Amino acid sequence: MPRPFISLLTDFGLRDPSAAICRGVIAGIAPDARVLDISHEVRKFSIRDGALVLWCALPFLPVGTHVAVVDPGVGTARRPIALRTGRSDVLIGPDNGLLIAGAERIGGPLEARELVNPTYRLPTVSTSFHGRDIFAPAAAHLARGVAFEALGPVIDPATLVASPLPAPIARPGALETSIVYVDTFGNVKLSGLAVDLVAAIGPLAPGDPLALQLGQGREARTELVPWAATFGSVPARSGLLYEDSYGRLCLADNQASAAARLRLVEDLPIVVRRA
Amino acid sequence: MPRPFISLLTDFGLRDPSAAICRGVIAGIAPDARVLDISHEVRKFSIRDGALVLWCALPFLPVGTHVAVVDPGVGTARRPIALRTGRSDVLIGPDNGLLIAGAERIGGPLEARELVNPTYRLPTVSTSFHGRDIFAPAAAHLARGVAFEALGPVIDPATLVASPLPAPIARPGALETSIVYVDTFGNVKLSGLAVDLVAAIGPLAPGDPLALQLGQGREARTELVPWAATFGSVPARSGLLYEDSYGRLCLADNQASAAARLRLVEDLPIVVRRA
Amino acid sequence: MPRPFISLLTDFGLRDPSAAICRGVIAGIAPDARVLDISHEVRKFSIRDGALVLWCALPFLPVGTHVAVVDPGVGTARRPIALRTGRSDVLIGPDNGLLIAGAERIGGPLEARELVNPTYRLPTVSTSFHGRDIFAPAAAHLARGVAFEALGPVIDPATLVASPLPAPIARPGALETSIVYVDTFGNVKLSGLAVDLVAAIGPLAPGDPLALQLGQGREARTELVPWAATFGSVPARSGLLYEDSYGRLCLADNQASAAARLRLVEDLPIVVRRA
Repeated sequence: MPRPFISLLTDFGLRDPSAAICRGVIAGIAPDARVLDISHEVRKFSIRDGALVLWCALPFLPVGTHVAVVDPGVGTARRPIALRTGRSDVLIGPDNGLLIAGAERIGGPLEARELVNPTYRLPTVSTSFHGRDIFAPAAAHLARGVAFEALGPVIDPATLVASPLPAPIARPGALETSIVYVDTFGNVKLSGLAVDLVAAIGPLAPGDPLALQLGQGREARTELVPWAATFGSVPARSGLLYEDSYGRLCLADNQASAAARLRLVEDLPIVVRRA
Repeated sequence: MPRPFISLLTDFGLRDPSAAICRGVIAGIAPDARVLDISHEVRKFSIRDGALVLWCALPFLPVGTHVAVVDPGVGTARRPIALRTGRSDVLIGPDNGLLIAGAERIGGPLEARELVNPTYRLPTVSTSFHGRDIFAPAAAHLARGVAFEALGPVIDPATLVASPLPAPIARPGALETSIVYVDTFGNVKLSGLAVDLVAAIGPLAPGDPLALQLGQGREARTELVPWAATFGSVPARSGLLYEDSYGRLCLADNQASAAARLRLVEDLPIVVRRA
Repeated sequence: MPRPFISLLTDFGLRDPSAAICRGVIAGIAPDARVLDISHEVRKFSIRDGALVLWCALPFLPVGTHVAVVDPGVGTARRPIALRTGRSDVLIGPDNGLLIAGAERIGGPLEARELVNPTYRLPTVSTSFHGRDIFAPAAAHLARGVAFEALGPVIDPATLVASPLPAPIARPGALETSIVYVDTFGNVKLSGLAVDLVAAIGPLAPGDPLALQLGQGREARTELVPWAATFGSVPARSGLLYEDSYGRLCLADNQASAAARLRLVEDLPIVVRRA
């Protein structure tokens, strides 16, 4: 029987002590838990960046409890929640859309609870650090064997805040998408998967020429790139569109930053057509 | 019986291998220890930043051995020390003030030792990496059960270098403080706690208007902010003064960086009065 | 019997989920493994930076499996490999020179295998994330007790890509070297060890004056620094050349960044002579 597994994702940053304090609280309550930091460098306040990172990571993590805190509404009326998934995980964090896409990748949220039971919080709950006072303790108590149902009352799933991840629009001959994440290599993740592009423009073969309309209206530009199987299919510092290792559409340069070369940032609309 | 607990705090940075090497040395000597990284991104050479982070973190960590290395004097005559606290922790690091405030938060330093016993150092001690050669090995040997007293001779606590964290000055109607830490959100931590402000200007209620004098002399500016319970009490990108989750005075913007908006850096004097 | 040990080094960055996903894959296959992150902030695509960090770290880590991924050729014909060392470690990563110098520090590579056995890969192997799909699973299966020989067929060591770390050239009175790594303190690591400098210019004593020719040709500059035992041997913000804690030649400033003061970057040629 492996030891219980807990993952953590926050925008707390690694210079400050906040992320380590969450781990310290867990270590005090559940000394045997295995704890994995997914990331603590999520872009500050970006619920969508956090949601995308969870969507990427959770299918590759063991079944366990996953705490995510990107929480600009901390201390307000937004609810602290726990979601039980079809894979038997529990996701814990604020009710602001952060957890939904990740939960859907591992069986979907089957049941939601509001984290109000004071037994599974720290004795004093601050107004500005619920990761320490509410979320990490809840995860640690689950790791000790506390029942999901004990955390608090049921929430109607229909009342949960929706995922901030947009869906692409497939039209005949064009996929209307946008930038949802720029990674540390400067690779540019789009809304939508490779299957969405196939639905819009038909089957794709390596080398197929594509025209990407970057932006809208008077500031729109066009970038020509091939559909490619991997970075090394094009010369160094050249662009490509590929299906990333999660099935998602991604615009990249071989051994360089496409985001820097093309000055691309989150939210920019992109339309993909055959060239 | 939980496995022994060791925490690490350094200014080594996460790109270089130094922090991982300290963990590797511990893993070799004490394979069963649980090791938690508080931070390795402390501002280079900033003993005070490191001291403040320890002050925040230690009350929330399990009892154990806490290694802290912000050590501009490595290789000089400054002493390597261990402090035993009232909570039964041991703090390990250089005698440069780094450990004092943290130790005081967990029962105070009851006894100090100088880390001179070669049995509990690596066989070769370099002049520039005592984290690897002296501090991490000492912590790992404690985790294996070595007695605190075996690390080296007693040091007179009166000879320890004092904490670099300044105290605020409470005057009738004004608290004279200064910036001691700017966190990764751009929240600005001040010297002094909420109770210190109450001592100077009386009981505080949410919404009380405050005038902050930023800087001194000809360059002084005034910023008006409310006393608030949490970020969401003010509009996005507006300022507030609040009691942070450690009891400390903190100047912040809701969902934005107060440090960036007001160009605030460490050491700036600030006087807080009622507006 | 301590639990099996796995270390990880990549250029994936700590903001993205990639490094954590590698850990998650390991946690699923080998729940009892101890996993240590050497660094995930290696300079993007810099095989040499990664090689130097491994060279520094591996002698101080427990015997185990060490996964390193700086892999600009992912998805191309470059081979995924495992090296068994004289210390009984296994190094795992791409065949691009990354692993060689580290392996040589812990007994040298005794045998190489190509990681082609599908039993020890994830069921689906992507073209762009072999850390997750090939390298981390191989390490986790070794930690579970799988034999090194089961990973795939033997590779002729003579066909392995060589280390990218250059060797210095010792001439009578001069050591011709270059910058191989600039650390997060701005300390500047050179190709070659202190013993190489002694071979070129004779025995060194603390305080010996040295002349460093920085760069070549018309842009060459000269910096005068003492040979010193540690940072504190010179005034704050002054330069020194010293033997770092790994035996390597290093140019540094006391409590400041030599790289910033002297505008030094990787690959710059440096010639060291007596002043």
